[in-house]
Parts: sequence; C-alpha cells; structure tokens
Amino acid sequence: MAGETTITIVGNLTDDPELRFTPSGAAVSNFRIASTPRYLDRQSGDWRDGDPLFLACNIWRDPAENVAESLKRGTRVIVTGRLRQRSYETKEGEKRTVYELEVDEIGPSLRYARAKVMKLTRTAEPGRNAAAAPRGGSDDDPFSVPTPASTTAGRSALDDEPPF
Amino acid sequence: MAGETTITIVGNLTDDPELRFTPSGAAVSNFRIASTPRYLDRQSGDWRDGDPLFLACNIWRDPAENVAESLKRGTRVIVTGRLRQRSYETKEGEKRTVYELEVDEIGPSLRYARAKVMKLTRTAEPGRNAAAAPRGGSDDDPFSVPTPASTTAGRSALDDEPPF
Amino acid sequence: MAGETTITIVGNLTDDPELRFTPSGAAVSNFRIASTPRYLDRQSGDWRDGDPLFLACNIWRDPAENVAESLKRGTRVIVTGRLRQRSYETKEGEKRTVYELEVDEIGPSLRYARAKVMKLTRTAEPGRNAAAAPRGGSDDDPFSVPTPASTTAGRSALDDEPPF
Amino acid sequence: MAGETTITIVGNLTDDPELRFTPSGAAVSNFRIASTPRYLDRQSGDWRDGDPLFLACNIWRDPAENVAESLKRGTRVIVTGRLRQRSYETKEGEKRTVYELEVDEIGPSLRYARAKVMKLTRTAEPGRNAAAAPRGGSDDDPFSVPTPASTTAGRSALDDEPPF
Repeated sequence: MAGETTITIVGNLTDDPELRFTPSGAAVSNFRIASTPRYLDRQSGDWRDGDPLFLACNIWRDPAENVAESLKRGTRVIVTGRLRQRSYETKEGEKRTVYELEVDEIGPSLRYARAKVMKLTRTAEPGRNAAAAPRGGSDDDPFSVPTPASTTAGRSALDDEPPF
Repeated sequence: MAGETTITIVGNLTDDPELRFTPSGAAVSNFRIASTPRYLDRQSGDWRDGDPLFLACNIWRDPAENVAESLKRGTRVIVTGRLRQRSYETKEGEKRTVYELEVDEIGPSLRYARAKVMKLTRTAEPGRNAAAAPRGGSDDDPFSVPTPASTTAGRSALDDEPPF
Repeated sequence: MAGETTITIVGNLTDDPELRFTPSGAAVSNFRIASTPRYLDRQSGDWRDGDPLFLACNIWRDPAENVAESLKRGTRVIVTGRLRQRSYETKEGEKRTVYELEVDEIGPSLRYARAKVMKLTRTAEPGRNAAAAPRGGSDDDPFSVPTPASTTAGRSALDDEPPF
Repeated sequence: MAGETTITIVGNLTDDPELRFTPSGAAVSNFRIASTPRYLDRQSGDWRDGDPLFLACNIWRDPAENVAESLKRGTRVIVTGRLRQRSYETKEGEKRTVYELEVDEIGPSLRYARAKVMKLTRTAEPGRNAAAAPRGGSDDDPFSVPTPASTTAGRSALDDEPPF
C-alpha cells in the first residue's frame, strides 16, 4: 500500500487485548487505546487532563499473540500504524463509520514502567500445526522471517478484512 | 515548545544505552537506533534490506533509567520524539551539525518479542537524595506525577542542553 | 497542549470549504478530506485504489480565511494537525462519536498542481473592526504575530469547542 | 519500500529551489527548509524562537518542476517524506553523513499566505521531448497517471540515488 495515513498514538489500553484466530488459524488481537493530552492551566500553572482520544486497534499474526501475552488493561503503549475507516449498516439500516488503527508496531512505554524483553525465535514451533497457524514467512510481509511452514493457506491471514 | 518536528522511528539499538547523571542528579540515557527499510525486488519477488537510517537519541529523568534497565544492544524499539539539530566546532575549527532525537516515548517492539511490563510506583524513593535526584514533579513536564521532592534545583534537569 | 495525537494526511477536499464566523468574529473553516491509498495488484502489476479515508477538518482564524480563499472541492492538500474526538447524543438519545482533525498547517499539494503564493501582511487591517474580529496576536498562539488589536474578547476564538 | 521513517516538517525555504535534470531528462529539485519551534517564556509570558532545524530536501519529476515554479526563498511550506541518510568521504578521507528528506508531498502553507492553485493536465506536453523528459507513468509510482510517453529510459528517474 502507498499513500496510507500513518499515525503514532501513545495511550493506555482500556481493556485486556482480545485474541482470536481466523478459521485459517491466523491470530488477531483487538484492543482500544485511550490517549489523554494535557494542557497548561494558566491560572493555576498546573497541567490538567484534556479530553481523551479513543482508538480501536487491530494487530495480526505473531505480534497479535505477543500483544496478548505482554499487555493488559491499563498498560501505557506506543503504537504506530495506518488509520482506516470501515463503514457498515446497523440493523435499522443506518450507515455507520468507524475508524480503526491497523497496527504496524506496538510496545509498552517505558515512561512509567520497566520491561523484561524476551526475543522470540521462530524457527521451531513445537506443538503447533503449521498449516493451521501459519506464522511469519509471507511474501507480503516485508519484515517477515522466512519459514518453511509458510503455506498458501496462511496468506489469508494477511487479508485486510477480518473474516469474522 | 510548539512547532517542533516530531518523528516516529522503529529500529534496533546499535549498543547498550549509556546512562549518565548530570551534576544536579538528573538521569540521561544516550543510545543510537538503526532503522532498516525493506524494498521489494521485483525480479526475484523477495524483500531486501535498504540502507539503514541511524539516529542518536536522548532520553531524560525516570524514563532514562527505565531505558537503561530494559533495553540493550539489538533490542527492536519504537521511539517517538522531536528531531533536533546541534552544531559544534571541531578542534580544527570546522563546523559540524548533528541530528538528535529528543525522545518523548520509547518502548520495546512486540513484533518479534514479548515483554513483561513492571509499572513503577514513584511515591516512595528510599535510598535516594530527593534534592540531588529530583524525579517527576516538575512544572514543565505535562505528564509528571507531582511529588513534594520537586525543588527549583531539579529544574535544571529539564534544560535542553545536556551539561556535559 | 501536550501529548496530543498528531497526524498528517494527504487527500482531496470533498467539497468547497465552509467559512463561518463565531459571534465574537473569529473565522473557522470546515471541510472534509478524502485520502485514497493505492496498492499494487500483483497479478496485473498495476496500482489500484484502496478504500478512501475521510476526515472532517477544522481550521481557525486567519488561516481559515486563507483556506476558504485558496482551496475548493477537489483540491489535493497536505494537512497536519491533531486528531480529536467529539461525542454527542442524537435526538433518539444514542451516543455517537466523531473524529475530527484540528488543523495546524495546510497547503495545496504540488504533486499535480502549481501554486501562486501570496504572502499576507497583517499589520494593517483596514475596514475591519479589530475588536469584533481579532486576528493574530494571541498569547496562546505560538506562531502569532503580535498586534495591538488583540483583546481579551478575542481569546474566545481559541476555544476548542466551536460555539455553534 | 516498507519501514521507512516518515516525517512531516513545517518551515521556510532557505533559498530558491534549485532545479536540475538528470542525463535521462528527469527533473529534481533540491532545497533546504528551516523549521523554527517556539517556546513559552514563563517569565515574560511571551513566545520566543527556539533553535531552528534545517533539513535538505529532494523532490523528483513533475513535482520537482512544480516546486521550482511555485516556491521561493522564504516560502513557508508543509513537507512530508522519508528521512534518509547518505554517507560520503571527504577529500581528506573523512567519513561524513548527511540527512536528507526524500519528499513525497509538499505545499505552500496557508497559515500566513493565500495561494492560487493551478491544476496541471498532463495529457499534452507540447514543446517537450517526451523521451528526454519522461513524466508520470511509471510502474513504480503508485500515484502516477499512466501516459504513453513512459519509456524504459524514463525509469532511471526513479532511482533513489541521484546520478550527479
């Protein structure tokens, strides 16, 4: 994709991330971020909370599992991704539009926290059915690490539209 | 500050972060990030590494210590901050300019790693001379948690120019 | 404000900008941008349009008038600003949320167009009631040019919430 | 390219853009932007200029010509592009690194100016040797408008490394 609208947002998870799997076995995590700006109250000289910005986020495949394992409600995170819009019709026939962030990179913020980072090696995936849960190794992921387990079926994991 | 040039960069630390303290006791971590883009080789259909972008980074106070405790050479991180320029003269009298990133938020990327996040509570700071190492609680930090230990001396920690 | 979520979007105006004035005389322009990404169709080797992203935009004071004078339906623009969220209740009592871009800078894109740029001088404002239409010169605008006409009344122009 | 570091910068051209043509006829404009942040002087309550950030910029093909025709020394612009780094050796054998912005979109800012926008139609290019100055219509430009004039020779215009 070219010409997508990228955005970086810093905020706190409003809930634990929700991890699901597509029929083809691809992981996706959904969560919501609340980002609260601060403004300077000139009268008192204090910083005060402004109105929060909430944004729904999706992350796919391996990183989706890493998010589900590492983050929880309240964790402050830095997220960068592409802002998207999805339209749908309500049961009453009304058209609604939601904005979503297709996450490219996410990590826990070290502003108020420390983190123990465990790098994953993805060569061996014991106890997993490679066909059902194809991870990494797709032609369409510029940062993927090629793995022999990558199958054609797995590429459906890369579709932009979630199959559920 | 208004009108600063903000930037988000994703890359790997080229070395362990270097943690130092100013004479007034403020922590600062310095490190460098290498960000390597990938491009699609149309002939082979493979993704290949492009030329890396290196950027020197500074982070101050509490987060500086969190960075030093959490990150090391090779860790993939997401960083957002303000791009700055510093000019100096070499011993030979030549003028040089370096670009630096004044980091606002940083975290380990969950693309290839998981993280155990430990939130810090900053109410009690046993074993620390509050006057010498004033943490949090400054008028100038919109996200600080107010602490009684904040003193005028501590504000020097917020100067843009590192005192060494 | 600190910690706001900034975003840069490139796209086309869906309509002519709508210029209005607050009771205190401050100008505001409202418009909507459609940003259409492109993706590479691997089968055909062609670039194709992806789903557009629409974003409502607000811009205040002098720049609002410049926008209304310079841009029209279809103009391709670059916009940078702060992403915000506004919640309201429908007549049926349903809660709705809209996202808006509070524009900091905007300009016509030179990708497919040329532009004749006319810089404004703001020292003389003949034919204007300075008290009713305070332009420039506010304590809260870091890029304003100080003018003697700036009055307390004028500051209402800077409120985040439009008064209509 | 994926994973490039994008940046949006607002500032003023330090000189008129310099337009050149590659041997194959592709246009490139080079210019430099000075971006000056402002900070609030708490003592006086005034906004003051901070240290400017200077950034060298390159823009290619049609937009390069549009830039040369539309912008000049002092024009305030909004620019978005990809931050890159280029290393070279001085005659004395010293290694130097420069940062450059590979511009994706640029436009004159409407903060203090108005603009008369003239959209270009690119079907007819009278008085131009299409082979020598191939414009638009490349497989690698997701936003190009296909033109019959696009030749293999023209694609060299898309190389990242300028041939001079």
